[in-house]
Amino acid sequence: MKQFIYTSVLALSSALLFGYTVLDKKEDKKNKSYWPNGARLVISGSMQFETGGQPEGADSPFSGNPLPKGQPDLPADSWFRYGATEGVYRMLDLFDKYNVKITSHMVGEAVLKYPEVAKEIAKRGHEVAGHGIAWSDQWKLSYQDELKFVQDGDKAIESVTGVKPIGYNCNWLRRSPNTLKVLQESGYEYHIDDVSRDEPFITHVRGKDFIVVPYTLRNNDIVNIEGKHWTPQQHLAQLKADFDVLYEEGKDARRMMSFSLHDRIGGSPAMVKIMGEFFEYVQSHEGVVFMRKDEIANMIKNDPSTLVDDSEERYNN
Amino acid sequence: MKQFIYTSVLALSSALLFGYTVLDKKEDKKNKSYWPNGARLVISGSMQFETGGQPEGADSPFSGNPLPKGQPDLPADSWFRYGATEGVYRMLDLFDKYNVKITSHMVGEAVLKYPEVAKEIAKRGHEVAGHGIAWSDQWKLSYQDELKFVQDGDKAIESVTGVKPIGYNCNWLRRSPNTLKVLQESGYEYHIDDVSRDEPFITHVRGKDFIVVPYTLRNNDIVNIEGKHWTPQQHLAQLKADFDVLYEEGKDARRMMSFSLHDRIGGSPAMVKIMGEFFEYVQSHEGVVFMRKDEIANMIKNDPSTLVDDSEERYNN
Amino acid sequence: MKQFIYTSVLALSSALLFGYTVLDKKEDKKNKSYWPNGARLVISGSMQFETGGQPEGADSPFSGNPLPKGQPDLPADSWFRYGATEGVYRMLDLFDKYNVKITSHMVGEAVLKYPEVAKEIAKRGHEVAGHGIAWSDQWKLSYQDELKFVQDGDKAIESVTGVKPIGYNCNWLRRSPNTLKVLQESGYEYHIDDVSRDEPFITHVRGKDFIVVPYTLRNNDIVNIEGKHWTPQQHLAQLKADFDVLYEEGKDARRMMSFSLHDRIGGSPAMVKIMGEFFEYVQSHEGVVFMRKDEIANMIKNDPSTLVDDSEERYNN
Amino acid sequence: MKQFIYTSVLALSSALLFGYTVLDKKEDKKNKSYWPNGARLVISGSMQFETGGQPEGADSPFSGNPLPKGQPDLPADSWFRYGATEGVYRMLDLFDKYNVKITSHMVGEAVLKYPEVAKEIAKRGHEVAGHGIAWSDQWKLSYQDELKFVQDGDKAIESVTGVKPIGYNCNWLRRSPNTLKVLQESGYEYHIDDVSRDEPFITHVRGKDFIVVPYTLRNNDIVNIEGKHWTPQQHLAQLKADFDVLYEEGKDARRMMSFSLHDRIGGSPAMVKIMGEFFEYVQSHEGVVFMRKDEIANMIKNDPSTLVDDSEERYNN
Repeated sequence: MKQFIYTSVLALSSALLFGYTVLDKKEDKKNKSYWPNGARLVISGSMQFETGGQPEGADSPFSGNPLPKGQPDLPADSWFRYGATEGVYRMLDLFDKYNVKITSHMVGEAVLKYPEVAKEIAKRGHEVAGHGIAWSDQWKLSYQDELKFVQDGDKAIESVTGVKPIGYNCNWLRRSPNTLKVLQESGYEYHIDDVSRDEPFITHVRGKDFIVVPYTLRNNDIVNIEGKHWTPQQHLAQLKADFDVLYEEGKDARRMMSFSLHDRIGGSPAMVKIMGEFFEYVQSHEGVVFMRKDEIANMIKNDPSTLVDDSEERYNN
Repeated sequence: MKQFIYTSVLALSSALLFGYTVLDKKEDKKNKSYWPNGARLVISGSMQFETGGQPEGADSPFSGNPLPKGQPDLPADSWFRYGATEGVYRMLDLFDKYNVKITSHMVGEAVLKYPEVAKEIAKRGHEVAGHGIAWSDQWKLSYQDELKFVQDGDKAIESVTGVKPIGYNCNWLRRSPNTLKVLQESGYEYHIDDVSRDEPFITHVRGKDFIVVPYTLRNNDIVNIEGKHWTPQQHLAQLKADFDVLYEEGKDARRMMSFSLHDRIGGSPAMVKIMGEFFEYVQSHEGVVFMRKDEIANMIKNDPSTLVDDSEERYNN
Repeated sequence: MKQFIYTSVLALSSALLFGYTVLDKKEDKKNKSYWPNGARLVISGSMQFETGGQPEGADSPFSGNPLPKGQPDLPADSWFRYGATEGVYRMLDLFDKYNVKITSHMVGEAVLKYPEVAKEIAKRGHEVAGHGIAWSDQWKLSYQDELKFVQDGDKAIESVTGVKPIGYNCNWLRRSPNTLKVLQESGYEYHIDDVSRDEPFITHVRGKDFIVVPYTLRNNDIVNIEGKHWTPQQHLAQLKADFDVLYEEGKDARRMMSFSLHDRIGGSPAMVKIMGEFFEYVQSHEGVVFMRKDEIANMIKNDPSTLVDDSEERYNN
Repeated sequence: MKQFIYTSVLALSSALLFGYTVLDKKEDKKNKSYWPNGARLVISGSMQFETGGQPEGADSPFSGNPLPKGQPDLPADSWFRYGATEGVYRMLDLFDKYNVKITSHMVGEAVLKYPEVAKEIAKRGHEVAGHGIAWSDQWKLSYQDELKFVQDGDKAIESVTGVKPIGYNCNWLRRSPNTLKVLQESGYEYHIDDVSRDEPFITHVRGKDFIVVPYTLRNNDIVNIEGKHWTPQQHLAQLKADFDVLYEEGKDARRMMSFSLHDRIGGSPAMVKIMGEFFEYVQSHEGVVFMRKDEIANMIKNDPSTLVDDSEERYNN
């Protein structure tokens, strides 16, 4: 009897605490099917275009010692500006050299401030994706404010590039419980703010499919180069080691690798150096395919072998 | 006279301050006998299975900038979820490849949330060990609450895996002064939350033997990869250097090396890459034996040459 | 109509928030002309001479755990003193060995305290540049106080070295909105507290040309060695990778690389070791020219192909 | 006139602010004479023996998240205990293997708690040096309390090892303005809490010679391994690079290199591995001599070519 009560209470408190439904066992396994296009490993890159949209005190080499509110931080501004004057262009040239197409997550205000940068990214064949109108906390907005926040960003992007984004990335990945519903209402087909798997999957939002193309903290310049204080060479070593294992696993399963570059960080000379070395390394392997995230979403959305994971179901009804 | 008083006062204040009994000199030396099984070096790995049991704001790449209480941190949750969807399975495959058996410290709530993961760990031949019912501070509980905390964890584990754990690991190693008595009362035979030696030893709890199989902060993924911001390659270099010296010492003494991996950290592709390299490196040396911690405890508990160390005697009476 | 209002409001709020004028498109591109002297890559070094001018609690290995106000921090003082007793002399010998001339940014109070150091720097052929009379926040001073702060520094430097500086570096790069006007009024021709480009450019201050010779956070000993806790070897790897890409770009464009060394940091044996290796590496490439920043300013100031960038126009009228 | 006032005020404020006397120019140069014993480079190691004397919350892998006052931190205690059970003995074996004698700075309470460790250090031929009776802030004590603090430490050390120390190291190098006078009164001949030079020098305390044998933050395990989160291999790279330059300089000048190891940090297997590699590296060079700090002090105290530096004169009268 005691055991029975114990187990029930535990199960109940677990359900109350976490609000998860128990996952279908099938969903907890890696996807053992291949990619529809026969790729052994799909690699998908992100390039955040945010420069010019940064709020006062945004993360920079200066933000550990912030100036008083209202005081302009001129060298910090110049550090961000580098993204638009040097960083993005240097990365675009790198991508061209290795024929890599990436997804560019664009803050609306950055697009309005540097329209020529946004246009150039689109012109070179990269995906134009949403990142909100402003560089600010999206998770604390009401449903209506969040809807406006997302759609204002879309309008800014569309007015400059002519593209309506279908993929979304929140500031620091931090969604509200409503975000996926807001994105669905705004015509989005996928988001990236989930790092739970090394492959894309389908979740359900108000009962309809919504695609998750996982982002990365492991292979992310703002996390490692700025946050962990790694050298570019350390970042390269991490990238190669992640690749080696995912490529090995790709023999028997659908595997995807993400990397991320931010305009003012990934666009430095030293970072472009090691990204070039990374591209050379992976392109020397058979079956490695670089894909934009919208291409991935389109490829897998109607594939019955794509994983389904409703771990966040409670938020998505 | 003055000298006499001085010395007495010092000795007294030392005793009052630290509450140690002076150690038998013999106990301060390394154990100069070999392992009962003739091993030159025993290596013992830990794999924490905690994902799904994390409290709000638990250590993650997001916890430096916590959300307000009650606000779900969805990308942080997805980062933890990786342990159950990818991390543990990837490590299990690695352990199989190198025929390494480890000890898995399981948070009760994680086991209840992902029973299929706990079962798979047990099925593959690894030790199922206790880690409390919840991922929370054990050191601040009363004796009775701590007893319940430990035994609720045991029940959760036993109900899912059928195994009653005999080895214990506290959250962040932090025991209360009562922990070893609580563990003794709960049928435990050893704990790992001590990093004072590079070999297992016997301590006395209420006059009876209790075994300590030392854990590690030096060769620990959550300390180095997340806390010190090392690359996997730096972690590998640390592991190899620690091994080299302990293996050398193993010629003349009983020496043990610990390493530790957490589901969502050690289970990344890059970490599995370097752990594979570590296993290959050490397995190319004669006399290196991987053992589960329960196997170690059983092997040395009745061996008269095993070290005895009662440094914490004041707490264990 | 709604769209019209939306766009106008966005444009207006963007203008209000950032106060930038839209840049001439031409200014957003890299300079595609070569250096007037035919160099493929110009490298420009900074050596801060600040020791002896440090305020209580200035950044040092001790400042994380500051002593109470008024309590002298004797080992911290001895750490700074190293710059004047060992660091600067060791770097001067290094520069002589590789025939490199750099720009030395001198805090006035350091110059008055260690005049023999300031004189030796000048005697060896390096540029004597301004860094304020004191090691303190310049961004919070009024126009008049800032004018005095700059000019007191000039007088200290001139009285000891006989040189009136024409280039300026603020403490931690942090300028006030008035700084460039103050510098212009004080006879300065260029400043370095901008990291937005990998080449020098012209901005306008009260309608007249003022030159920006960009500084660096990427190749800066106080940022990387002290702030990021890199080893000297990691700093060297960063320097080489930055060089490789800028040198490659220098085939088709005017490119400049900055590095920075502080007396008590860059002057350590290990740092001088790797800087020597860096100089050997770059000097093995054709067309690499080391220049003082005043030489750079003089070379490009009347060159019509020099970039113009008025991103900070609102502050400079 | 204005210039005259300006200069006077500056000189005066500088004198008031810093209280330095202007150094004799001769004292600002490196010592261009060789070592009396003909060594090309003298290397001097420190081994702190502190374990068992640590106060609540002392720096450890646990101190970033301290327990409430009064709550024992058992795993932290076990981490410190490692110094006495494994660390010191492992380092002593290493020193024997390479015939290196070092200076051991011993906290009085550690000596009383682990007398067998202190005796073993002395027995193996290493210098027994003072480090205070307790592991606590010395800089805030009154003259009389500081005298007692130092002399209680001496008595503890002498009662166990039979040695009266003549060299001193403060906790975290942090001296009070009285420390050198207290040491002089207590029969000390040198201290190490100064990092301003790469050679020993003489200062004056109440008009009499007192020797400074510089310590190191650059080649210090607690700074780099624990504080900077370096791997042992990174520490080795730093040590070698520092050595290379000081050895080169030793051709023409008296140069000294310091390194530092703490019982529970430097005594880990991986650290002993790289220190062995360091010893092999430097011993393959001609003219490298390892010396205890008391030997250095005795060798240079009556050598007229030894540098004199009274930078702290104001505190030492």
